[in-house]
Amino acid sequence: MKFGGTSVAGAERLKHAARRIVAQRERGNQVVAVLSARGSTTDELIGMAAEVSPRPHPRELDMLLSTGERISCALCAMAINDLGYRAISLTGSQAGIVTDTSHTKAKILDVRAERIKELLGDGAVVLVGGFQGMSLPERDERGRIIRHGEVTTLGRGGSDTTAVALAAAMDADVCEIYTDVAGVYSADPRIVPGARKLPIVSFEEMLEMASSGARVLQLRAVEYARNHGVRLHCRSSFEDATGTVVVSEEETLEQPLITAVTHSTQEARVTLLGVPDRPGVAARIFGALSDANVNVDMIVQNEPLSEGAEADISFTVPRDDVPVAESTLHPMVGDLLSRVATHTEMGTVSIIGAGMKSHPGVAAKVFRTLGEQGINIEMISTSPIKISCVIERAHVPRAVQALHAAFELGTDVHQEDPFRGVR
Amino acid sequence: MKFGGTSVAGAERLKHAARRIVAQRERGNQVVAVLSARGSTTDELIGMAAEVSPRPHPRELDMLLSTGERISCALCAMAINDLGYRAISLTGSQAGIVTDTSHTKAKILDVRAERIKELLGDGAVVLVGGFQGMSLPERDERGRIIRHGEVTTLGRGGSDTTAVALAAAMDADVCEIYTDVAGVYSADPRIVPGARKLPIVSFEEMLEMASSGARVLQLRAVEYARNHGVRLHCRSSFEDATGTVVVSEEETLEQPLITAVTHSTQEARVTLLGVPDRPGVAARIFGALSDANVNVDMIVQNEPLSEGAEADISFTVPRDDVPVAESTLHPMVGDLLSRVATHTEMGTVSIIGAGMKSHPGVAAKVFRTLGEQGINIEMISTSPIKISCVIERAHVPRAVQALHAAFELGTDVHQEDPFRGVR
Repeated sequence: MKFGGTSVAGAERLKHAARRIVAQRERGNQVVAVLSARGSTTDELIGMAAEVSPRPHPRELDMLLSTGERISCALCAMAINDLGYRAISLTGSQAGIVTDTSHTKAKILDVRAERIKELLGDGAVVLVGGFQGMSLPERDERGRIIRHGEVTTLGRGGSDTTAVALAAAMDADVCEIYTDVAGVYSADPRIVPGARKLPIVSFEEMLEMASSGARVLQLRAVEYARNHGVRLHCRSSFEDATGTVVVSEEETLEQPLITAVTHSTQEARVTLLGVPDRPGVAARIFGALSDANVNVDMIVQNEPLSEGAEADISFTVPRDDVPVAESTLHPMVGDLLSRVATHTEMGTVSIIGAGMKSHPGVAAKVFRTLGEQGINIEMISTSPIKISCVIERAHVPRAVQALHAAFELGTDVHQEDPFRGVR
Repeated sequence: MKFGGTSVAGAERLKHAARRIVAQRERGNQVVAVLSARGSTTDELIGMAAEVSPRPHPRELDMLLSTGERISCALCAMAINDLGYRAISLTGSQAGIVTDTSHTKAKILDVRAERIKELLGDGAVVLVGGFQGMSLPERDERGRIIRHGEVTTLGRGGSDTTAVALAAAMDADVCEIYTDVAGVYSADPRIVPGARKLPIVSFEEMLEMASSGARVLQLRAVEYARNHGVRLHCRSSFEDATGTVVVSEEETLEQPLITAVTHSTQEARVTLLGVPDRPGVAARIFGALSDANVNVDMIVQNEPLSEGAEADISFTVPRDDVPVAESTLHPMVGDLLSRVATHTEMGTVSIIGAGMKSHPGVAAKVFRTLGEQGINIEMISTSPIKISCVIERAHVPRAVQALHAAFELGTDVHQEDPFRGVR
């Protein structure tokens, strides 16, 4: 069971989470719960660091940030103890979450779950601080420590990954992700009031949804779950109804043509005009952007009309990355490109569906639907199960509504049993 | 260097502490700094626990409370790194502070300072979270862990003890305690404006002062320093002047008759009337109070007039302990005593001085001084270097002023060099 920040913000919600954990325990299940920091704790800690240092040392930032989840876990353990069950809170390092040494963006290398297994065997509920782990000490050939193990953090949303990694290591029946939404929807219900809660989604669809704007699950956590065959169940902390189950494609009996419409309104488009059409130029440009940590998403290059002529390259980046992208690109003007044009008011709308692979004509329907709305498509990117269109940001809600209606995603063809349709 | 909560509250004070640490480093010293939680952090964490649980589990309380000092240390390390020095923050457990297993009131058993020594040898400044440690894992004869090591805390004011214990383990030249007061005074300057900052105090005097109301140093920390010969220097975080040095009695050249007047206004007097004068009765009464964690200080019993008659016993407790004391004592009425009388508006005034031992007549002068003020002495307790009188709370300021004047403690007989008078 993984509880996000809003699910543990404040004493009442924390006690509510404790009761949900105890309810699972009372059903005879062994429970490991991963908790995030409460509400805005992580942002407050980052704010404290910013007050003290313009560029906080990454090791110390990890020492600082890892306290937030520890607070949640200790408080929840107190509440569970009061409910008559033994509960033990563990830090990421006590829980055996072994990571590499990349502070603030560490990757999980191993989960050494002996202590958790032992505690579960003793009947305890185990609470684990999400988002954190520990790098291993390095020893010389005589066994002496030459680099100590250090507290690390996994980066934003890392608590989902902690939960999935523990579920994989424990061979858990299910990894339940509790959030403030009831599951994964066919579109954002704030934009499409008739959006349907999806009872079942494949990992592949979930990956495409997470990478194209759906915020219910972290991309890394979905990848980890797919790679380790961990069944996910996204559900609400505040109501008992089942949510959305994410399973492997082979486990889904039916493959709907289109599952969901996702969107993002945080995009900017950067166009590089007059790029010489010779080998290595694109590599130099995008290598520099990558070194500057600019998160380039979609890239489109129009073919030059004649051999050796110049090309135009457009790509999208998160709007927050525009200043860094521009300062990285401007030194190249005159040499690698003739001009940089930035349009910050962009968005994307995507349709996702595992059945798309075997059904041609989906793209045509998308273009026709947007065209009927008078919405111009600036860039297009496709995968076997996704079609994404970059459009002007102001048109995004209308595009989402039109596509959701055109593909009839609001029709309730599924029952509310999430395990229906699962082999 | 140890910085208390007010010295690290807020970004500016924390950066100020960082600069003081760097200044010591620039003088060529190796520096280990122990930090408390910032300002009211510990109280806030206790408040969070109280919201979640009426009696928080001690292990989880320690997991919770130990985060406060870690936050201070990580932030301070960031600030020192920005000043161009390498700084590493360590938790109590990373710093090798080994304690017993008594959660929330653990005692330090050992300091395994290898990692700190190694870091200092590499030129780093080491920051250690105060108030916390780690119990050792327990293993069976085959080396398997049968009880894991756990995060522990040392109880209120434990950061002073952390600092002294590290100073002892590192064989430090001095343990500097930075607070919001400039040192140890001959009386509380808020009550006696002419009170003098004492350049030098012996451990024995400091112990008596700490136990009779002076709040500049924790009693446990002074005991630890005395037992391990750690020289203490209490000084202000906010000004550069030297403060008060605490050293062993043998190191002080002169022993002033009277060093200081201390006081407390948080006392209550409990009188037990009609206690049978037979062996074991007092043991049962005070045993029960001790089991209830009532902190009994001064005890006075008047001799019964005849063999086998009943006695009256009076004792003082902190005013906050009165409700628990009363609920512990009331079941004994009729059996072990006839009546309990409580007076909550009491205080104590004490005079302390290592030279008192060899000068009779001090007690007489104390009684005469208070008598001239029309102040009635309710109870008296003495040690070789202290005379304490319980009086009505309302009279405490006047008593402190009168005693400070009578023993001429405001006269500046010492220079402001704290190491003057030290062999």
